[in-house]
Amino acid sequence: MATKYYDAQTLSFYLKTINNLNDVLNLPYYQEHDMEGLDMFVQSVNDFADKELFPYFQEMDEQACHFKDGKIIVHPQVETMMRKGGELGIISASVPFDKGGLQMPLMVYTAATFILDAANNHMPGYAGLTLGAADLILNFGSEELIQKYTPKMLSGEWAGTMCLTEPQAGSSLSDITSSATPNDDGTYAIKGQKIFISGGDHEYLDNFVHLVIARVDGAPAGTKGISLFVVPKKRISDNGSLSSNDVITAGDFQKLGQRGYCTTHLIFGENDGCKGWMVGSENKGLKYMFLMMNAARIAVGRGAAGIVSAGYHASLEYAIDRKQGRRLNNEGKKNVEQDQTNITNHPDVRRMLMHQKVISEGSLNLILLTSKYADLATVSLSTEEKEKYQLLLELLTPITKTYPSEMGMQAISNGLQVLGGYGFCSEYILQQYYRDIRIFSIYEGTTGIQSLDLLGRKILMQNGAALNYLMGEITATIKSAYSHESLHTYCKKLEDKLGLATKVITHLSAFAQKGEYLKYTADANLFMEFFSHILIGWIWLDTAGKALTEKSSGNTQYSAQFLDNKVELMKFFYKYELSKTTSLSESLMNVEEVTLPEGTFQF
Amino acid sequence: MATKYYDAQTLSFYLKTINNLNDVLNLPYYQEHDMEGLDMFVQSVNDFADKELFPYFQEMDEQACHFKDGKIIVHPQVETMMRKGGELGIISASVPFDKGGLQMPLMVYTAATFILDAANNHMPGYAGLTLGAADLILNFGSEELIQKYTPKMLSGEWAGTMCLTEPQAGSSLSDITSSATPNDDGTYAIKGQKIFISGGDHEYLDNFVHLVIARVDGAPAGTKGISLFVVPKKRISDNGSLSSNDVITAGDFQKLGQRGYCTTHLIFGENDGCKGWMVGSENKGLKYMFLMMNAARIAVGRGAAGIVSAGYHASLEYAIDRKQGRRLNNEGKKNVEQDQTNITNHPDVRRMLMHQKVISEGSLNLILLTSKYADLATVSLSTEEKEKYQLLLELLTPITKTYPSEMGMQAISNGLQVLGGYGFCSEYILQQYYRDIRIFSIYEGTTGIQSLDLLGRKILMQNGAALNYLMGEITATIKSAYSHESLHTYCKKLEDKLGLATKVITHLSAFAQKGEYLKYTADANLFMEFFSHILIGWIWLDTAGKALTEKSSGNTQYSAQFLDNKVELMKFFYKYELSKTTSLSESLMNVEEVTLPEGTFQF
Repeated sequence: MATKYYDAQTLSFYLKTINNLNDVLNLPYYQEHDMEGLDMFVQSVNDFADKELFPYFQEMDEQACHFKDGKIIVHPQVETMMRKGGELGIISASVPFDKGGLQMPLMVYTAATFILDAANNHMPGYAGLTLGAADLILNFGSEELIQKYTPKMLSGEWAGTMCLTEPQAGSSLSDITSSATPNDDGTYAIKGQKIFISGGDHEYLDNFVHLVIARVDGAPAGTKGISLFVVPKKRISDNGSLSSNDVITAGDFQKLGQRGYCTTHLIFGENDGCKGWMVGSENKGLKYMFLMMNAARIAVGRGAAGIVSAGYHASLEYAIDRKQGRRLNNEGKKNVEQDQTNITNHPDVRRMLMHQKVISEGSLNLILLTSKYADLATVSLSTEEKEKYQLLLELLTPITKTYPSEMGMQAISNGLQVLGGYGFCSEYILQQYYRDIRIFSIYEGTTGIQSLDLLGRKILMQNGAALNYLMGEITATIKSAYSHESLHTYCKKLEDKLGLATKVITHLSAFAQKGEYLKYTADANLFMEFFSHILIGWIWLDTAGKALTEKSSGNTQYSAQFLDNKVELMKFFYKYELSKTTSLSESLMNVEEVTLPEGTFQF
Repeated sequence: MATKYYDAQTLSFYLKTINNLNDVLNLPYYQEHDMEGLDMFVQSVNDFADKELFPYFQEMDEQACHFKDGKIIVHPQVETMMRKGGELGIISASVPFDKGGLQMPLMVYTAATFILDAANNHMPGYAGLTLGAADLILNFGSEELIQKYTPKMLSGEWAGTMCLTEPQAGSSLSDITSSATPNDDGTYAIKGQKIFISGGDHEYLDNFVHLVIARVDGAPAGTKGISLFVVPKKRISDNGSLSSNDVITAGDFQKLGQRGYCTTHLIFGENDGCKGWMVGSENKGLKYMFLMMNAARIAVGRGAAGIVSAGYHASLEYAIDRKQGRRLNNEGKKNVEQDQTNITNHPDVRRMLMHQKVISEGSLNLILLTSKYADLATVSLSTEEKEKYQLLLELLTPITKTYPSEMGMQAISNGLQVLGGYGFCSEYILQQYYRDIRIFSIYEGTTGIQSLDLLGRKILMQNGAALNYLMGEITATIKSAYSHESLHTYCKKLEDKLGLATKVITHLSAFAQKGEYLKYTADANLFMEFFSHILIGWIWLDTAGKALTEKSSGNTQYSAQFLDNKVELMKFFYKYELSKTTSLSESLMNVEEVTLPEGTFQF
């Protein structure tokens, strides 16, 4: 097992130097916090991860969650995650003071939970979904619901879940059939089945607060007839005692990865004894749920970024110890009299390691940037700023979910490949990361769904307002990077790519304008890859520029090698990754329609 | 579990119509065979796979091979694979009559074993390595070794293995340390450890014939001092009785996938009682071993192609049954009053399914083509032809190993994605294919090693003679495809790509000419991806052209839809896959050196 799963200085660099946490921290909303206090919080999370998460990572895979005698058996360390993590503030960090939280910037919450994800990605979800569920109640629930449920959720004594998926509906939430029938006492009788409920049940906590979407009898078809309910596993009497609420645990899905994170099948109201309390107004449930869903999407990107970080460190630790083969001399021959060379001296191995590092840091940078937008959208001083950052947040959310997940799979696969045959062996950890990360492009809306969201909704929204803001941000970065002579080539490249993006968007939009939506979105998945690579090209240029500025500043916080590496990683990204957009634009502007169901091809 | 793992008509199409098995069958060497007889052989292998391999696929994963009390425990069906498979001719099919085989074309052997790979990739290796080991003895061993070992190997009563890898050496065979000390009786005392020995031991066969590379005492350093030995698990007395040869089974590696295919750790001569018999001449061992290795590399490509085929069928079977979501109307809205649509009507799902199909068929086509070259290199009538096809075989071997393995991972990942959350669940089979296929880019020389072989050796060999032959073949295909009006666009595209290939090779060769081999090969991996995509672009154009010819021929062997689909798959390949070569060429000709160990970047 590797010994390191993230680099604290790298995290701090992207949090403070690149994404300038101070921009957020200086806002009045965060006046109770200072950098020192936040550093201490992150350090305490680091210590918690070192002690309580990382050592159990392999064990949680081997002792997978499972269903036995009507119960879900999970690793006992899940209790520590919830209770000690709750005490530490892992659940409540970003929640406002007046709602029982620590009112920290989301940027800091993201940085802290990234550490947890990197340490052991099977665990943070238990806490993360509890926060998400509590957030929904805090934002849209009645005072009674808030008082009854959220204190014990934020402290980690009770868990929360989000219950959307049903067997017949999958990603198509229009088609859920779980029902809610009004009772005389203002509650609803809930009936239905939910599957793939992460963290949905186990024996270590007293209650599970399920946030369930269902249809009130007679509600309109589709997403306009969906309401949201708090459905606890156990009802709470006025004196605080708990009693069954007819929520039955029917099974635990056995999975390729994340085996320590249970995935339950729940049945609500099989004995007609399940009560739900409506959150907010009738038929507005999906809108509310998207508050949680959008946060969850950023959390998915964060989780993938964490795994890539851990995979990189495990792969690097192997590589720096491993000698094999020899370098070629000028005749293209090897000198077998020499000792074997370290494998990090083989360009192909370097490429695979640098690929992991460039994906890892690009993903980390992206999740922090998006978290910053979320902070600014909430607590900026002017409405104008709030609107701007809200649009940027909405545009970046599907990318923040997808890029680390999709590229992370490639990075981890490279990580495994660095170990050769050992990479395929269970005693090395890369194969576990390889299995774990595969779910991230499926969670909370698959890459296909995210891509439709990006191209079909976010690019077009408010006549391209979000896109315009983004172009403004990118242009500002390019302008600033031009102040470094050595970056001119890359500034020019990124400008070219912006031109290419405009060309592609113009080409595709023509279909939307003609009402040919199927054609417009047919290659949304490729557009996601295309657009996100340009976006990441932007943040790498920003990183390289700031690294050079930092280097010439005379500060000694970071070593020259640390800063030089950032510039080299940017170059790596431009040579091997940003270059992919040329081919992607070719495919996107190729008018041949081969994937439309009306085409000649038939299965 | 899916019900289908390959399509017999598709296999027949690529074997006969596209790669024209008759070209080979008409050669005098194969005069004892006719199409009808070979069809019967393939059908019998199909029946064997249906009955004895496919039903055990999931079970062999769940009941993984393991080491217990000094023994390797494998699934009992392994015995059936070897003994019944041996009777059926699965091991001996391609071996000459006079060496105890059935003297079938390698093309037919490849087609037949592709079926086995698709049915259950955990099993064919047991037989395949036995053939490889027998082949080495038959080609280079003494008459005594041949008589003693090969009959029982070809019949499947004894197994064979290839023992190359040692813990300290990995891919660097220069650095093996296993030793061979001459005994007075002409044998050698063998001492050393070998790891990752596939099919290295189990209880169902009486003997294991290990083909071991080792150094005779005092041999030169490096690969020039490697000799090859037959080292049986049990020695054979003159009366045929078996006794221990001091080959100890020390363990079985537990793995991410192919868990039913044991991967053993063997110790030779720990008690100084291990005898080996030299094959051929001293210090020529590695040269001999490459006969087996090259065949094994084609077999790896074939195995990956088989998995992709099976994954595609499993993914398609799910998709054609699954309804979810709705199509967008001209306002970009969904009509929730309609029933849900089949997911094969979503362009993104179609794209993922077609991607699997295009990789599956392209890989199948490639392994059959390479097998044809191998046949023609061996039994063509003229020396000139033999030389030509030998060069083509050598050029294509690393690609045939790599393309199905690397692209197969992407195809299977798409296959899993088609199932959404279910794809991640153990009860669906895609997750097993996802794990199994991960080893193929590592087996028998990683993708990195294959890429160095392609760019560093094969492209340059005999002043580019192999490349010239290949260009000749491609040009002939383009000329022939120009006879179809509807293919002109694609002929032109492929011509452009040939020009691009020449440009890239010229650019890179300049480094080799200057003796800068590290720079020449630094991006060999990208070159592999670039070059193999153009190669597959060629065979898709060939396929489309022949499909159109077949369609207009009036034959009714294939339906019009079957043939139309081939043209559409070619278009798919050109739009989504061949297009990738633009970006790859950009990266390959980008002179920025970011992965050289002397660069600025340091880990």
